[in-house]
Amino acid sequence: MADAKPETKPKKTHQERMARKKQVIDERIAKATEERGVLILLKGNGKGKSSSAFGTMARCVGHGQKAAVIQFIKGRTETGEFKLFKDHPQIDWHVMGHGFTWETQDKTQDIAAAEKAWAQAEQLLQDDSLDMLVFDEMAYMFKYRYLELEPVLKALQNRPKNQHVIITGRVMPEGLLEIADTISDIRDERHAFRLGVKAQAGIEF
Amino acid sequence: MADAKPETKPKKTHQERMARKKQVIDERIAKATEERGVLILLKGNGKGKSSSAFGTMARCVGHGQKAAVIQFIKGRTETGEFKLFKDHPQIDWHVMGHGFTWETQDKTQDIAAAEKAWAQAEQLLQDDSLDMLVFDEMAYMFKYRYLELEPVLKALQNRPKNQHVIITGRVMPEGLLEIADTISDIRDERHAFRLGVKAQAGIEF
Repeated sequence: MADAKPETKPKKTHQERMARKKQVIDERIAKATEERGVLILLKGNGKGKSSSAFGTMARCVGHGQKAAVIQFIKGRTETGEFKLFKDHPQIDWHVMGHGFTWETQDKTQDIAAAEKAWAQAEQLLQDDSLDMLVFDEMAYMFKYRYLELEPVLKALQNRPKNQHVIITGRVMPEGLLEIADTISDIRDERHAFRLGVKAQAGIEF
Repeated sequence: MADAKPETKPKKTHQERMARKKQVIDERIAKATEERGVLILLKGNGKGKSSSAFGTMARCVGHGQKAAVIQFIKGRTETGEFKLFKDHPQIDWHVMGHGFTWETQDKTQDIAAAEKAWAQAEQLLQDDSLDMLVFDEMAYMFKYRYLELEPVLKALQNRPKNQHVIITGRVMPEGLLEIADTISDIRDERHAFRLGVKAQAGIEF
């Protein structure tokens, strides 16, 4: 409008706006005071779930903490992550799977592998020397009904107070979603595979 | 319905269903034959973008490949990822940022830092001895208009054919989305911070 009053408030400088933003953020940070182990779920159909778990583990190990990994599906030891981390003194890595269901084609074997992996996981969940556990692709165990959810929830809730747990897998059961502290849903908006690019060492495994 | 015909087709066994699934998957895999460097964008407001980039880098390094990282915003060297990876012989790590805009509160300094980081990035994009580049939090440079997009797109498109690039940041500019091979959108469904848990070493940094 031509007769609108001119803006009387002087325009804030970049420094003033950023100082105000810092104040807001600092107030939020001041409210978050608790220190404890968190349960992180990385779900969805996009690329980045397991890699994010291993990247977070790298972060924790860099601070001198101890971590353990259980791979519930992968049975391969030629992955880059295994090769890099297997001999690290702060990392305890368990490849417990035998491959995806369409690779094994053997439900009895899959269930036996799931139960064995869970027995191992349950021990780790009682070991307070471990700062972080990664249960890679564990979520499939519930989808396929290879593992019962209740004992897992109970063990997660009774774990050492400062132990972080990261669970990956496309679809998470409701009970896990309920008790999680952080949930990221990783959505596939595009994937090189559909553009004709094969799975490459260093990217997909 | 009581008078419905009984199912005449015999129910497929688990093994038969999985064999069929494997066939479908194998056909898809057979179509993806190209081997080349891919551009991966990790965007969205959820936790897991940078950690996924570093996890993928760990994968690549585990296979004996070489990687370089540029951190466009973070100016901190006390992160777990830096501590773990900085001395690795296959990794070249550059902390080029000075913190978020509300931390520096100095636009001139931010722009100078962005330009310096990009000059470094441009060199890496011409170095075919590097298998993977991680440009951590680079996307913010376009959002804040600290870097022009066009020269970046051009350098990405002219990079060595087998070089992978991973770019992280909440919001990606349209031009980057257009040329990317893989895009994951990481959505924040829950975050421990909002439950009162502070940023913890090994999880957030």
